[in-house]
Amino acid sequence: MRQAGRYLPEYRALRANVSFLDLCKNPELAAEVTLQPLRRFGFDAAILFSDLLVPLEPMGLEVSFTEQGPAIANPVRNAADVERLHNFDPAVGTPFVLETINRLRPELDKLGPTPLIGFAGAPFTVATYAIEGKTSKRFVETKRLFYTDPQTSHRLLEKLAETTAAYLIAQVNAGAQAIQIFDSWVGVVSVEDWQRFVLGPTKALVKAVQATGVPVIYFPNGATTILDRVAAVGADVYGIDWRLPLSEARARLEAGGAAGAAVQGNLDPALLLGPKDEVVRQVQAIIEQGQRRGHIFNLGHGIYPDTPIENVEALVGAVKNA
Amino acid sequence: MRQAGRYLPEYRALRANVSFLDLCKNPELAAEVTLQPLRRFGFDAAILFSDLLVPLEPMGLEVSFTEQGPAIANPVRNAADVERLHNFDPAVGTPFVLETINRLRPELDKLGPTPLIGFAGAPFTVATYAIEGKTSKRFVETKRLFYTDPQTSHRLLEKLAETTAAYLIAQVNAGAQAIQIFDSWVGVVSVEDWQRFVLGPTKALVKAVQATGVPVIYFPNGATTILDRVAAVGADVYGIDWRLPLSEARARLEAGGAAGAAVQGNLDPALLLGPKDEVVRQVQAIIEQGQRRGHIFNLGHGIYPDTPIENVEALVGAVKNA
Repeated sequence: MRQAGRYLPEYRALRANVSFLDLCKNPELAAEVTLQPLRRFGFDAAILFSDLLVPLEPMGLEVSFTEQGPAIANPVRNAADVERLHNFDPAVGTPFVLETINRLRPELDKLGPTPLIGFAGAPFTVATYAIEGKTSKRFVETKRLFYTDPQTSHRLLEKLAETTAAYLIAQVNAGAQAIQIFDSWVGVVSVEDWQRFVLGPTKALVKAVQATGVPVIYFPNGATTILDRVAAVGADVYGIDWRLPLSEARARLEAGGAAGAAVQGNLDPALLLGPKDEVVRQVQAIIEQGQRRGHIFNLGHGIYPDTPIENVEALVGAVKNA
Repeated sequence: MRQAGRYLPEYRALRANVSFLDLCKNPELAAEVTLQPLRRFGFDAAILFSDLLVPLEPMGLEVSFTEQGPAIANPVRNAADVERLHNFDPAVGTPFVLETINRLRPELDKLGPTPLIGFAGAPFTVATYAIEGKTSKRFVETKRLFYTDPQTSHRLLEKLAETTAAYLIAQVNAGAQAIQIFDSWVGVVSVEDWQRFVLGPTKALVKAVQATGVPVIYFPNGATTILDRVAAVGADVYGIDWRLPLSEARARLEAGGAAGAAVQGNLDPALLLGPKDEVVRQVQAIIEQGQRRGHIFNLGHGIYPDTPIENVEALVGAVKNA
């Protein structure tokens, strides 16, 4: 979960001289910030440094990052806007992502057997940015489009699923050994909207990536309440946020027919702001809830910028000693 | 759910000349905006017009409302801040709320048998405002206080539960015939934090209000995933957001030992932005999921400012004809 970031002094130093989007697009620097946390903490896997919105730019949207977060100058609001979005060849539209992966693999091999996880946003989450034009709180424009023009909404999510599949397959071909799909905002949809709009394109995306042979991790943030339905996307691993113990998350996945799936998670990143002994205690509790099978230890959401380094060290130590 | 509000032209007209906080504090105007939606739509019950933050001012916090939402100039961050908060006599600290209720009861009786629902924020949700000083996205300060100083956190939530109990009992004595407790942000806590910090004070508050003889509705927004635990607060009715069908919400409440409780909800307010026939279809589906027993029809969250009036009319018609 956002291994690289502002909680690291070496990241802050590098970011002082380059904008966020320029950093994503510079393979040398993007590889460097991907490696920074690995060198410091010795994590078991690396996750590519990039952003959910990167593929929207070659699709034809004007993406920028402001103090208030991402902004899209020409958001998608109707059928004509959706038609205007185009598929792109990742080698042409996002060559810097593939080059970052090319650079990373030999460096990661030097650190020992450290697999690289590629990633992208899920169709629904990327659609919310495309439609709202920013990080939303209530997703009013997204839902308005869903309910007033379901055809266009379907078309948008299908198009995003197709484009994202090509983008992720290119990451695998460049050297990513697993893929994580982030559905950061899917917690705002009802069961009916999940079934009607979200499940189909997400499932198609997962399947297309799995056809390359790599495992797919799907992170449905905020959607543990409908995890039995979420299980239908067919991922190999489900990222679980901190709202539900892993043992119960696994039971809901099993109820949804995903008995063989692994779980990933789920320490509340806010716990890393507290005392170290509490971090260790919670790590141990989560490992017990993970039942010591098919469990990738992780945070339940992105790490906070003001997380003390020594708490991350305590976390890694507690996981390795468990 | 926010019956009065900016979606009503008569509310916008009244608000043009008065600030939000002044409106909350003016019994004549607060009663008027409480009645506006009743006159227009003939709802079966009225909900007092007020705000979750109203009791924080007489406790000693400097509350204001800006374009960006509520702001507290002197947020609570440590033990000394918590000690400085004081209980208050609602007749002295919030006389305008009691006078609004006094004015409303005869007016509501004229509209037919229309009960008045009083309300307040739950201890956790009010605590997040007191600690963060604003509407938060990640609740970092709240969780930091929980994990670094659990004693002070307990004391704050207990104090808020005590103050809120007195505030709500005063509402009942003034004429409120039911009470709704809004836990708008409780969806961000883990099961452990729920058990450790939130459940106790919330349960105590519910019990104190029930001792007056009126039913208590508890709305744990975003927490359907742990509804079996939430059931331990002992409310008469649970408000359910739109993320889970009512039939499943009821099953989770029953699993948590609240088999006799009623449910309230749960149309996604965003649906009211779409076509009218879709609103009617969804209302009918929700009434079926409510199993025609112990179900108060409601939205799953507050109504949006740009909701078309005719969609609310269609909703009310569909509920009454169902």
